Amino acid sequence: MGGLENGATYNQNSVPSTNKTSLSPDSIINLDQGDPTLFEPYWRKMGDKCTLVIGGCDLMSYFSDIGNICWFLQPQLGDAIKGLHRAVGNAVTDGRHFVVGTGSTQLFLAAIYALSSPSASHPVSLVAAAPYYSGYKDQAEFLRSGLYKWEGDARTFDKDGPYIEVVTSPNNPDGAIREAVVNLGEGKLVYDLAYYWPQYTPITHPLDHDIMLFTFSKCTGHAGSRIGWALVKDREVARKMTEYMQISSIGVSKESQLRAAKILGVLSEGCQNLGTAASENFFEYSHRIMRERWESLQNVVKNSKIFSLPRFPQDYCNFTGKYTDSNPGDARNKILIIIISSSSSSSSSSSSSSFEIGQPNNSAVCSKEDIDWESLLREHKIIGRSGEKFGADQKYVRISMFSPPEAFTLFLERLSAIIDITNGNVVGGEERSVIKCS
Amino acid sequence: MGGLENGATYNQNSVPSTNKTSLSPDSIINLDQGDPTLFEPYWRKMGDKCTLVIGGCDLMSYFSDIGNICWFLQPQLGDAIKGLHRAVGNAVTDGRHFVVGTGSTQLFLAAIYALSSPSASHPVSLVAAAPYYSGYKDQAEFLRSGLYKWEGDARTFDKDGPYIEVVTSPNNPDGAIREAVVNLGEGKLVYDLAYYWPQYTPITHPLDHDIMLFTFSKCTGHAGSRIGWALVKDREVARKMTEYMQISSIGVSKESQLRAAKILGVLSEGCQNLGTAASENFFEYSHRIMRERWESLQNVVKNSKIFSLPRFPQDYCNFTGKYTDSNPGDARNKILIIIISSSSSSSSSSSSSSFEIGQPNNSAVCSKEDIDWESLLREHKIIGRSGEKFGADQKYVRISMFSPPEAFTLFLERLSAIIDITNGNVVGGEERSVIKCS
Repeated sequence: MGGLENGATYNQNSVPSTNKTSLSPDSIINLDQGDPTLFEPYWRKMGDKCTLVIGGCDLMSYFSDIGNICWFLQPQLGDAIKGLHRAVGNAVTDGRHFVVGTGSTQLFLAAIYALSSPSASHPVSLVAAAPYYSGYKDQAEFLRSGLYKWEGDARTFDKDGPYIEVVTSPNNPDGAIREAVVNLGEGKLVYDLAYYWPQYTPITHPLDHDIMLFTFSKCTGHAGSRIGWALVKDREVARKMTEYMQISSIGVSKESQLRAAKILGVLSEGCQNLGTAASENFFEYSHRIMRERWESLQNVVKNSKIFSLPRFPQDYCNFTGKYTDSNPGDARNKILIIIISSSSSSSSSSSSSSFEIGQPNNSAVCSKEDIDWESLLREHKIIGRSGEKFGADQKYVRISMFSPPEAFTLFLERLSAIIDITNGNVVGGEERSVIKCS
Repeated sequence: MGGLENGATYNQNSVPSTNKTSLSPDSIINLDQGDPTLFEPYWRKMGDKCTLVIGGCDLMSYFSDIGNICWFLQPQLGDAIKGLHRAVGNAVTDGRHFVVGTGSTQLFLAAIYALSSPSASHPVSLVAAAPYYSGYKDQAEFLRSGLYKWEGDARTFDKDGPYIEVVTSPNNPDGAIREAVVNLGEGKLVYDLAYYWPQYTPITHPLDHDIMLFTFSKCTGHAGSRIGWALVKDREVARKMTEYMQISSIGVSKESQLRAAKILGVLSEGCQNLGTAASENFFEYSHRIMRERWESLQNVVKNSKIFSLPRFPQDYCNFTGKYTDSNPGDARNKILIIIISSSSSSSSSSSSSSFEIGQPNNSAVCSKEDIDWESLLREHKIIGRSGEKFGADQKYVRISMFSPPEAFTLFLERLSAIIDITNGNVVGGEERSVIKCS
């Protein structure tokens, strides 16, 4: 996932950084949400290729495909999903049941419903390795469900009995490539692969997990459609996930499904001509956009005496047929900003926030000892999300890098001002150091 | 609501009675679901008036209207809803907060979430007067939520403390016009008004309750769009309902919202020319369709020695400016079939299923002593829903009257056969009697 989360998510008093708002130097920049409107120009340029026309008598029935376990899945969308995964090579689809949801958000709830048991004497434990997507905890707890119980950080989980581990890879907020952590006998895994697309990370191989969640929002930027899909190995799990959607919303918007089918189809076609077409396909375009932002960010952060950007490991991307090199600007990764302390204590592994800074994501994590980063940024009229929400602590903050160009520019200006201030506060000439907590 | 319910709802082994299936004399007719595709011809006839065109770069953002409590509600839909309620006169909208959901199904869950309290020491009781829409119980229980507890029939509810009563009016399954039943001090009410439209019931006055739920599915027949809306008096309740949609699905499909806005707009325009236009507006059309079905049904049932159809009370409909008369064929009601027993015991009020047979709905309730109607109909390859699911008992069964024409015709043929059989089993010439349980 990676979109909105509850709590401080939607701040009614600030202007979300959408394309529709015009910002002044004094505007509050809301980088808390991951609203992917920065990709709009590409889809506008595609013109009529992606236009969807729906007649007044279309799509009236509850039913889409009565022979399918997921009877509300429009066949066109199933075909488009299969075609896209084949073109990109990021997930195995053969023999899988496809389940559609109102965003992967709804599918996450469907998955934990499907993997829990109404007859169990205790709720099944639900864990994810910190820092984890802050939405999981909210979703697990908001209804006080007796089916599952949020137990927090998978790395410190040691209870007996059944558990569900959510593995987000690339991770939100820090972009790390993840594997399961708990690895005990009675565990079930849910893989949230919202960012496993070429613009964010090298596609090393088609993933082959039991439950894999994807979202239209992060694949193409169409967050308003509310479409996610799950590739599910086990028939009974697929049936129960379908049951979840039936009880909670009697299926999923068919208009959105047809739209997603159309746009994913165009996306797949674009992949056929990779490297040969006169114009960029969407993955090339979006990677370029993110790389340009990364370079802009580098230009600002390089002046800092206490901040720096991380280096990211190389890997071979099957989709592009290239290696990423160690310059994150060339990495097909989403931008991750790490702001780190020069104090020696911050480079120790005694930090309670024990996570690897890995490949970047669309978000940012900042860490500096003794600073509540969310508050500091807020003083500069930048809204981020405190690390506390991600199972880390307040010395970290996540900042979405998905904002429209105007908001991003303003963010860089303000970050530059923060750097000037913190440079002025540095005593002596201590070397920068990268925080790597294990 | 009134759509699909869990449990026996979607029978994978039977063919749902959709327009897309061709039935043979041996086909199983699934009249369990209320799939409103019978209205398709009207919307087809409307041609381009209802066509929606969506460009590839449209609707990408999570956000629709950041100044609104329900920040994912498309303004066009809000305007269309307001206009329609004004045109029909069935609900007060002034001063109300509009909340959109993925069907009124999702809004029901949002409402009970909003009306419960996470800090309460006990879950809030949830009740509805039997026979009640079978979906409420499933929705209340499927996640074992600690926030609310399904307590069943409102008429026998006598616990202390806070409660939520769901009032469905016209009721599903029996079409009764309902008021709150419990009327104790600490109660909150949720009004499910899925059928409070002119084709189903006289519009006597604009309803003015604290929470009123409507659904696109039953208003126009567009069930596949998954759009419902709530008119909410209290700001904090609206905020919490919005929060529910945020956590469970980060809002609602914007494609569906725009589609609903377009079609509801056309519907409202049609209401302006009521009685004067050359062609029927949708409410006139759909009422006529239902009336024709009712007359067909009367023709079949009139031959029965033990079955008959009820008479329905008259009322003045502000929308049409006419009274319904006692011939249900002229009533602007959806068809309700009551199959009743000739045995004297069945006319007593000692029945444990104490409900009024009132104005009809899109569904059917059958009652005969000693017969498990769902099973009997199943023997004749008709799928209905047992009264047990509605808080009644197995001598009742609900049959949807929304089926496509072919399925309805086949249903009448088989009902005719059942009547022949049961006529043959009647001893003597006992008079027919209407079951009226109080």
